[in-house]
Amino acid sequence: MFEKEKFKKLFTLMEDYELDAIMLAPSSDLEYMIDYSGHLDERLNCLVLLKDKRYFHISPLLNYEEVKEKYPKDAVFYKWSDGEGFLDTVKKSFEDFDLIGKNIGVNVSIRAIDVLDFQEMLDCKFKNAHKMLEEYRIIKTDEEVKNMIKAGQIADEVMVDIKNFIKPGMYESEVIAEIERLYKEKGAHGLSFEPIVATGKNSSKPHYNEGTSKIEIGDSIVVDCGCRYNNVCSDTSRTFFMGEPSEKQRKIYEICKRSTLTAQEAAKKGMRACDLDKIARDIIENEGYGHTFLNRTGHGIGFSVHEAPDIKGSNKTVLDEHMAFSIEPGIYLEGEFGMRVENIVIIIDGKGVSMNNSPVDIEDCIIPVEK
Amino acid sequence: MFEKEKFKKLFTLMEDYELDAIMLAPSSDLEYMIDYSGHLDERLNCLVLLKDKRYFHISPLLNYEEVKEKYPKDAVFYKWSDGEGFLDTVKKSFEDFDLIGKNIGVNVSIRAIDVLDFQEMLDCKFKNAHKMLEEYRIIKTDEEVKNMIKAGQIADEVMVDIKNFIKPGMYESEVIAEIERLYKEKGAHGLSFEPIVATGKNSSKPHYNEGTSKIEIGDSIVVDCGCRYNNVCSDTSRTFFMGEPSEKQRKIYEICKRSTLTAQEAAKKGMRACDLDKIARDIIENEGYGHTFLNRTGHGIGFSVHEAPDIKGSNKTVLDEHMAFSIEPGIYLEGEFGMRVENIVIIIDGKGVSMNNSPVDIEDCIIPVEK
Repeated sequence: MFEKEKFKKLFTLMEDYELDAIMLAPSSDLEYMIDYSGHLDERLNCLVLLKDKRYFHISPLLNYEEVKEKYPKDAVFYKWSDGEGFLDTVKKSFEDFDLIGKNIGVNVSIRAIDVLDFQEMLDCKFKNAHKMLEEYRIIKTDEEVKNMIKAGQIADEVMVDIKNFIKPGMYESEVIAEIERLYKEKGAHGLSFEPIVATGKNSSKPHYNEGTSKIEIGDSIVVDCGCRYNNVCSDTSRTFFMGEPSEKQRKIYEICKRSTLTAQEAAKKGMRACDLDKIARDIIENEGYGHTFLNRTGHGIGFSVHEAPDIKGSNKTVLDEHMAFSIEPGIYLEGEFGMRVENIVIIIDGKGVSMNNSPVDIEDCIIPVEK
Repeated sequence: MFEKEKFKKLFTLMEDYELDAIMLAPSSDLEYMIDYSGHLDERLNCLVLLKDKRYFHISPLLNYEEVKEKYPKDAVFYKWSDGEGFLDTVKKSFEDFDLIGKNIGVNVSIRAIDVLDFQEMLDCKFKNAHKMLEEYRIIKTDEEVKNMIKAGQIADEVMVDIKNFIKPGMYESEVIAEIERLYKEKGAHGLSFEPIVATGKNSSKPHYNEGTSKIEIGDSIVVDCGCRYNNVCSDTSRTFFMGEPSEKQRKIYEICKRSTLTAQEAAKKGMRACDLDKIARDIIENEGYGHTFLNRTGHGIGFSVHEAPDIKGSNKTVLDEHMAFSIEPGIYLEGEFGMRVENIVIIIDGKGVSMNNSPVDIEDCIIPVEK
């Protein structure tokens, strides 16, 4: 099963990272590798993949029927029941496959409480395999890039339509429902995350998504959404204004927009992620708002809406052909409002190309209000 | 802040479990303790509570605004930005609070990859604190019991109404939407989980929730749902029949029903959870279907829809006054159908009392089909 071309890079990486095996619980890692999108819960349910390409799956009895569909007929399963718990099963499987004393990488969805139990029971060296698994997916294939272009186009169309839909007095949740309807109508294969619509003061919390406030005249409104298209994601944010923006709103918006556009034009092969972060950040800092730019400039995206490479100060990753990431610097003024303009950028032929092209000129982002 | 009556038991437990501090990331643990229902993501965001009642919160800059609302003004925060990552911040906070060399418990939502990094960086002994945190909430207060009775009544009303709503040709997803509408209408404070509606073959997967199949004549249909009411949960399952059930369907249904009702009547203070599991399991095993009863007999419930005590073979916990749990033995015939009848039981005055009382007589579970 793991002889396929797709996995070649993974086994090379396991050598590089000196891992004898990796444990993968439900996550985008597992979904990407074996198309299993099982629910992550308290029951240990994981693929154990060895560097010699052997593998087995530790499955709760409860999930066995859905898990086994994802594997060839001769795959090895270690099933465990709620009655016995999984610790003995893990031990037996590790002994059967000679994993005692070895280096075992774990992915992001394995729980600390379980590894702490494994450490007490097994003489293995458990390791953080997240960085390796990020590296595995960081370069997008031609096919993935094509699909990301399409996913971005759908997101742009939704952004244009939603601006015409928003009216004063609407609840944020109504706007969210319409965004969901629009994505469906335009042929998206699902959403990449629950849309964020944050109006007025709510927009100062970058991840606000309660949906409970009404949009009022004078509000700035952050809309952040995206969809899946053939197994890749889009993600874009725009800031709209309900009626004529104030001087302060205009000023802050122009800084955010300039920061996004400058960084996206600067992005290129050979540049470090942290240096790209600095380009976006410097613009905001030079205007005196550095302390309000709370988050990283961007996150990688592809099969998963958040993957490598993060565009942030601590990330020395060198940008390379077909890496994909968001550029979304923002200014968040507590108790007042927050703003951002977010585009997905892919390095194509060495240069940053934006997947998102819905209007960012402030005049195009103002929603006219009838007097 | 942690002087309150509510936390007394927790500090006693920390002594018993020899923990100097516990780390709690977003989870029902943290929601129960400080009413913070933050989103769990890749950014470390956790309360660190010491056994001497001091505490601090490690917060991503991005979440600081929402986190600080949950604490008194003099609370100590260690904020970290995406630019620097959280490892140095964790180290500094542990040094400031003299936690180096100490026993640190972690809750269920702390990631293994992070604890593996902490272990490399800090000379602390990290421990699985899940069992202790389960014990903390396992006995329901009078107030919680009162709310669980109400949550169960709402779930029963929905179950009666949904039986009258289901018609041949409907998609499972349509039934789910109606369930959601009904809970809202009846005054639930949210759902305790996404409702499960599994028709025909789908019902042989206990956790199926794709919603994509049409209900056909002859199908048995498992409906599993519940709501929140004032911070506690309900959870109930019924099996319905679209038209006259077959002999086999009747036979299996009666076994499942008998298993649930027998166990719920047997439940009492002083009995071990594993012995209650055996009562339900024996009925199914004696009929020759033991190998198809894939799951535990039940799970604890309260603030969270899944908490302690599990009713399963490996759990020696002795049932006590005001413990609350589901009884949901089931028979799952791969490729054919699955069935269960699920009630929540609370030990009140020493005896098991069912929170769910919607009809279980098979004649009441048949949905008539027009010829």
